[in-house]
Amino acid sequence: MNKPFESEVLIRFHHCDPAGIVFYPQYFVLFNELMEDWFNHGLEVNFALFHIRGRLGLPAVKVECEFLAPCKIGEILRLRLSVKRIGRTSLTLNIEGRGPGNEIRVQATLVVVLAELDTFRPAPLSGELLEKVQRFVL
Amino acid sequence: MNKPFESEVLIRFHHCDPAGIVFYPQYFVLFNELMEDWFNHGLEVNFALFHIRGRLGLPAVKVECEFLAPCKIGEILRLRLSVKRIGRTSLTLNIEGRGPGNEIRVQATLVVVLAELDTFRPAPLSGELLEKVQRFVL
Amino acid sequence: MNKPFESEVLIRFHHCDPAGIVFYPQYFVLFNELMEDWFNHGLEVNFALFHIRGRLGLPAVKVECEFLAPCKIGEILRLRLSVKRIGRTSLTLNIEGRGPGNEIRVQATLVVVLAELDTFRPAPLSGELLEKVQRFVL
Amino acid sequence: MNKPFESEVLIRFHHCDPAGIVFYPQYFVLFNELMEDWFNHGLEVNFALFHIRGRLGLPAVKVECEFLAPCKIGEILRLRLSVKRIGRTSLTLNIEGRGPGNEIRVQATLVVVLAELDTFRPAPLSGELLEKVQRFVL
Repeated sequence: MNKPFESEVLIRFHHCDPAGIVFYPQYFVLFNELMEDWFNHGLEVNFALFHIRGRLGLPAVKVECEFLAPCKIGEILRLRLSVKRIGRTSLTLNIEGRGPGNEIRVQATLVVVLAELDTFRPAPLSGELLEKVQRFVL
Repeated sequence: MNKPFESEVLIRFHHCDPAGIVFYPQYFVLFNELMEDWFNHGLEVNFALFHIRGRLGLPAVKVECEFLAPCKIGEILRLRLSVKRIGRTSLTLNIEGRGPGNEIRVQATLVVVLAELDTFRPAPLSGELLEKVQRFVL
Repeated sequence: MNKPFESEVLIRFHHCDPAGIVFYPQYFVLFNELMEDWFNHGLEVNFALFHIRGRLGLPAVKVECEFLAPCKIGEILRLRLSVKRIGRTSLTLNIEGRGPGNEIRVQATLVVVLAELDTFRPAPLSGELLEKVQRFVL
Repeated sequence: MNKPFESEVLIRFHHCDPAGIVFYPQYFVLFNELMEDWFNHGLEVNFALFHIRGRLGLPAVKVECEFLAPCKIGEILRLRLSVKRIGRTSLTLNIEGRGPGNEIRVQATLVVVLAELDTFRPAPLSGELLEKVQRFVL
């Protein structure tokens, strides 16, 4: 049975703003780290090689995100990534982040496109990548 | 007649990622600068005093954003902010960014809440702020 | 015998600039993470509580850093922190980062001051903190 | 007579940390913006073209910086850049930042190397660039 990819992240001093809570653009940086970790450990595709040798990237084309409760320094945010939809050249990802009491703090849907770095043209997902990605469809 | 608040921003080296285009979380940092500029120059409310003396903030609770075309270093992005909806304690803002040929690069809707920094409780918009904000409703 | 505090960090997409290497201000963000980890796991002082309850911070007053070789996405940077000098209200820290072949990539000396967050006044290191910090003097 | 290159920057919400002051790595981001502005407006060398077409960059190899007093949101930091030393492939830059009362807040020396982006090899400064840079030697 398919399961989401999970990761835990410590909320750090540098994620937080003068109000003492995570500055919301930092969540997208954390989602980017999550996507890298998903590639490296979930899909078992080396993200650095995918990027440097494959000359491929995954730029976001659409983002929807709700910030349901603030996160503070020292908290552990448990992130969960699953695949909502697989397109020919794109992926729609669901991401949620939960606090220590399992309450949802942040909930996002990201559409990313597989793109050739040198031309910025969308590229179709390879059969191998497709197969791996399908294991995270929920 | 109401008009949007406008601002121009130079895309800089540090906004860009290894693919040579703006790293998308940076757009949200730019939107935050835009909101500050809107306060300072559009609403004529000093954002720093609003924050430091008023102990108020405007955390985002919801964000929707489409990245229609990438921005590169050296480009001027023309940003436009207007108010879509005024709630009792929240504002829904429309933001768009256009490139040199007037083509839309990025388009966002942000819901921000007026919040007391010390309690994170939503606070109702003051009559004065409300009146100023209404001039940017489109 | 005293030993440095060590930590490993994966160089990520978002650390890198359009030249494909770590954008140098990001090293200082990584050093900040290292200092947090040192507090949490090396000194066994909860950095978040130190900050939130103790109302204390460690702002940098002086930084010297040499970037001897660039780091790229996907590399593991092994960071090492030791204490060079303990002042009444300050710490001088040595940090070095080594690449996969043990070659030094980055080497820094940071002077940080223990400061009260509410007044920004320097505060003397407590006896307990002093004792813990001494174990990392090299 | 030679004069430094000057620029003013508004300290923004996103530059500041939970202590309410500029998070020190952000100063280096601001110095990077200053260097870009110096290229564009001081040296009259288009930095984006220098980077994209010339395939050249200016990675830092050494940084020394003193943070003499903190900067807060809403303050204007007046930055000043001058050239301390011109090497065959490197530049040593002095940067200082002053607050509203002309007091020095931050003072830095940066060594940057002219480097080919594709090989990371140092490149000698062209005669034209050299001549322009010399006008900022103090």
